This record gives sequence, structure tokens and C-alpha cells, in this order.
Amino acid sequence: MKNPENRATLRQLGEFGLIDRFRTRLRYRSPQVELGLGDDCAAYRASSGGFQLVTTDALVETVHFNRGTTTPEQLGRKSIAVNLSDIASMGGTPTLALVSLAIPPRTPVKFLDRLYSGMGQMCRRYRVELVGGDTVASPRHLFLNVTALGETRKNRLFTRSGARPGDAIWVTGTLGKSALGLELLQRPQKKWKGRAGDFNRLKRAHLDPTPRVEEARLLARSRAKITSMIDVSDGLVQDLGHICEASGVGARLEEWQLPLAPALTRVCTLNSLNALSYGLRGGEEYELLFTSRPEDVKKIMSQFHQARCPVSVVGEITASKNRMILEKTSGAEESLRFSMGFNHFKTGKG
Amino acid sequence: MKNPENRATLRQLGEFGLIDRFRTRLRYRSPQVELGLGDDCAAYRASSGGFQLVTTDALVETVHFNRGTTTPEQLGRKSIAVNLSDIASMGGTPTLALVSLAIPPRTPVKFLDRLYSGMGQMCRRYRVELVGGDTVASPRHLFLNVTALGETRKNRLFTRSGARPGDAIWVTGTLGKSALGLELLQRPQKKWKGRAGDFNRLKRAHLDPTPRVEEARLLARSRAKITSMIDVSDGLVQDLGHICEASGVGARLEEWQLPLAPALTRVCTLNSLNALSYGLRGGEEYELLFTSRPEDVKKIMSQFHQARCPVSVVGEITASKNRMILEKTSGAEESLRFSMGFNHFKTGKG
Repeated sequence: MKNPENRATLRQLGEFGLIDRFRTRLRYRSPQVELGLGDDCAAYRASSGGFQLVTTDALVETVHFNRGTTTPEQLGRKSIAVNLSDIASMGGTPTLALVSLAIPPRTPVKFLDRLYSGMGQMCRRYRVELVGGDTVASPRHLFLNVTALGETRKNRLFTRSGARPGDAIWVTGTLGKSALGLELLQRPQKKWKGRAGDFNRLKRAHLDPTPRVEEARLLARSRAKITSMIDVSDGLVQDLGHICEASGVGARLEEWQLPLAPALTRVCTLNSLNALSYGLRGGEEYELLFTSRPEDVKKIMSQFHQARCPVSVVGEITASKNRMILEKTSGAEESLRFSMGFNHFKTGKG
Repeated sequence: MKNPENRATLRQLGEFGLIDRFRTRLRYRSPQVELGLGDDCAAYRASSGGFQLVTTDALVETVHFNRGTTTPEQLGRKSIAVNLSDIASMGGTPTLALVSLAIPPRTPVKFLDRLYSGMGQMCRRYRVELVGGDTVASPRHLFLNVTALGETRKNRLFTRSGARPGDAIWVTGTLGKSALGLELLQRPQKKWKGRAGDFNRLKRAHLDPTPRVEEARLLARSRAKITSMIDVSDGLVQDLGHICEASGVGARLEEWQLPLAPALTRVCTLNSLNALSYGLRGGEEYELLFTSRPEDVKKIMSQFHQARCPVSVVGEITASKNRMILEKTSGAEESLRFSMGFNHFKTGKG
């Protein structure tokens, strides 16, 4: 904070009532909240009978996003969405969020307005009240940290452990789009072949993901037995690996069942890229990856069909501990490698 | 993440099981927690009958701390302590915490070990389980964001509003020490007169504050009526101003009642500084500032005395809305100015 001009800007923001500006953009009010923005803590009532959930995610400028390729609204929506995806992946419903922002000097107030607008949109869409946060100065880079709170229905909690041999492996939506979208954003100078519509769809998948909150609710209410769940943030193979490791099992994926995004396959074909590897390895999809008992496959399929939510069975859990096999369309088998252990040190993503 | 060497360091950390390293340092396990570190969310059970509390605080290198003046352990303890202080200021008991870290390249693993040790010490001391977080790369500066969760007893929630004319104004501990401690740290080249013991005490007050969790518990259990509470993070006048504004009242402080820290008055006297202004304006004290009905003064005083917790009555709430008066020892009166509105944009503190 050495530049007095910037200090003035920050001070002005304070005086003009930064929070009041944002209040109007953060309109959803939860009936559970007793005390929202403006005191030392937010206070709320927990619903009885379920688990409380909490998760937190940091986004750092130049590491997770670049202001040149994302709009402030997209960044705002995504910062909330990735946390809601974590709540969804436990079978929870998101309830509240808190946002910490460290803002470099000379950040235009307009940028902050638009950032908060995006956060407000995502919060309203999923009925999440933004109840607190901290807004501080940063010497150089924008830093965003979102904490989301949620609840499970009764005591239904879906974790990474619990998958058993014979279980069906499911994934919502499509795969591979976000990773190729990121590549399109990072290498604009490359002469990409394809349609503008496909490019935009892939970029948007990366910049503006949709958390699968409704699908999670569907599963939490289903009478089908969901044995494990995670969201696809590190890529299908890696995240399925987390389930295998936590559950002490292995997995077999079937190539022809993988729901590769149509825009992905079109752009990959035109540019001689391997769509399959995006589908298997591409991160930041925020689709739900879960397992169910095989006898529940029909039930789940019909529930998703009724709700018009796309979902696919992509393989089966096996007893071969920590071994993952891809059955190729050609009939050949390929062993898939994934790294073991928590890798909370998520570097270079986004 | 342009330097491949640093990338390797971060990757190594991942492979060596960063979380596992820290698990051993974060030993307290809460009986309420169903699922701690290692899944997409933490899951826990809320106690029934009370409010749930949540707060979040960001600390940015060069803005809130400098690695040259704080040890990693102190930084770790303080990052947790300031959040526990927010929970305490609502009359709550802290339960869980989450830590997001954005780590610049070349940060020694030893630094992180010591940082987490400090966090673990503070968590154990107050029985807080560290249940989650996010650890990412930062291009240049260290960012720390801590989210703390807590609960109130039954529905006893102390807020900034609720102070009424005639209420006694209380403050725990002593005032002014942290602000002078910061000055000692920031201006080591100045020829400060005084004892090394006093210098250390003042610096430590700034670098290693104690959240008033026990005092908050005392008040939450007391049969005395606590009409408002806040923690002294912006300074006595400013924080009392928040109470006045939220409660629609004014305040009168009595100079001779202010609990100026003895080390503060000694160092101020020797260096021709005004101890009173440190006491009135010095921030980051993390003492509790609260109001009670006047008939409960004796009850509260005796409870604090029994618990050996220092506390002082420093003035009285008045009906003069948003007016704050200091009654001087000389008999003169001085009007104290404080800025209105939320100032969530806490720049340059620490």
C-alpha cells in the first residue's frame, strides 16, 4: 500500500460503503440466517438431523485465472460454483458462503462491482446467502477465497469411501470440455480449426462451470444406494483414483461409454488431438462422479431421465485394489495410472 | 509457476503427503466431526439449541505481516487467534477451522512446518479441529485465509446492537500494547528508550495475541445481561463506535478508567509518546469490548475476579446518538471522532 493514490481509492470504497454496494448484488436471503453481513461473525441455525458441510477454495490471479481471459462476472460465478460443487459432491445442499478478497491497488471499482454481480448470480441461482467475508489490500495479485457451507438431508453423506466391487460407475454431463477450453484460451495464437460455436462452448465450460447441485439433490433424495461420490476437479481418472484409494477397490472403464462432449470430439478431430485423453484426464469439469449398487442402475437412470439431467454409466468397480483399467473400443485393455495420496497442493490449475 | 525448480518443490510436497505432515501438527479431534481432512468437504454435527457462527479473515504478506518480523509459529497462531476472537466476540465457542494458503515459490518446507505448528498450537489450546483447507501456489506473496466456525450456548448471541443508555462499558485485559508493539517492529532503527522486557511484551502483544475465548465463555454462561459485544480489532474508539452506531446510542469514556498496559505507559513516558492515544486508537488488541446493564456490574466483576481474568468498566452508554465523549482526568471533556459505516476494507493493518 505504498501508492497514496491507491490507498485513497481503497479508502473511498470504505467510505462509500463497499458492503452496501454489494448488498444490492447479493440479494438472496436464507431463512436460516439470524445475522448476515456486518457483525464479527454470521450467525445461523442448522437444520436438525443432517450433517453440516464446509469447504474452502482459493483462486489466485495468474495461477488459477487471468483477467485477460475471464470476465469479472465469470470469475465471480466460478469462484462460488467450484465450492458449491464440493458441497454437491457430498450429497449436500449449499446454504451460505463467505468471500475473502485481497485486492491489488488500482483495481477499478467497476471490476469489483462486476465480480460481485457474478457471485450474486450464482448465489441466487442456488439459494445461497453470502453472509460474510474479508476485503483487504494485496500488493500485486488478486486473491479470492470462498468458503461454502451446506447441509445433508438427514444423515445421508456421500464420501469417497464406500465403493464396492460390482458397483456401477456414473458420471453426470460430459467430459473433456473444460481442459480443451483452457487450451483454447491459453493458445489463441494457434490456428485452431473448427466452428466459433464449439470454441465458445468449450471456453465457457472452463470459465463458467455449472455446479451439479440439482443432480446431487436428486441422488440425496433417491432410494437408490449411492456408495461413493466426488466431483471431477482433477480429471476422471484422478478423481476415480481418489474413490478407489479411499474405498480400497479398483475400477474398469469402458471407452465407448465415456460421455465425451460433442464439441470436444469435433474440435479434436479437426485439429488432430486425442479427445479420449481430454475425457480421461481433463480437470475442472465439476461433473459428479459416483458409484451405485448395480441393481439400482435402472432406478437412477430413470430418475435422471425424468429430471432431464444427462448421466452415463462409464464402468464398474473391481476388487483389484488401486488398479484402473480402460477397456478400449478395439477390445484391447489399457492400464490407467493415477497418483496416490491427497494432492491438496493444487498447482497450476485453471 | 514459471520456475521449474519451484514447481518441483511444490510437487514434492504433494508427493510426500503435505496433508499427512500437517495432520501430526494438527492434533485436536472434535467429537462433532464426522469427516475431517481428505474429502471434498468436512462434515460435522451441529449442537442443538444454539446458533452456528462463521467468520473468515485474510492475512496478506507485506500488508498484514512481514516474514522478517514474525516467526512462522507466531504467524500461524495469530492467523487462527484473530478468527477465534471473532467467534468469542459473539459469545461463541470456536469448534472448527479451515485454512487456505497461497504459497510463493521457494517457500521452504520448514517454514510451512513451523507455520502449521503454530496453527496447531492455537487450535489445540482452544479445542478447535482443523478440518479442511486449500493449498495453492502464489506467484509472489504469501496469502493466508482462515475460516473459523463456532457455536453459541442455547440462543445467547451477543451482537453489536443492543447497548442501551445507562449500560456499563467493559473491556477485558489492557489496551494500546499491540499498536506500540507494531511501531517498535516497524521502526527498529529508532533509538527507543526502555527495558528489553517491555519491548518484548509489546511486540509479542502484536505478533502473538490471545483470543478471549475463556472470557467469552464466562459471559455466555453468566446470568448477567450482556447487551452488546465486539472485539477490539480497529481500536477502542472505533469499535465502540460500531456498537454505538448499531445500537443507536452514544458513549462516555472515563480517561482514568482506561486499562493502559503498564509496559505501554512506561515506554511512552520514556519516549515522549502519548499512551492515551494508543489506548484509545490502537487496533489489533483482540480484547473483548462489551456492555451490560448497570445493575449487573458487581456480578460480572466478581465472576471475572474469580476466574482471574482482568476486566475494567471504562464508561457508560449515553442517549446521545453516535456521540462519543472522553471525560479527562483533568475534568475537561473531549469529543472523540470515529468513522461511521462498515469498513470491511481493512487496509494496511498489522
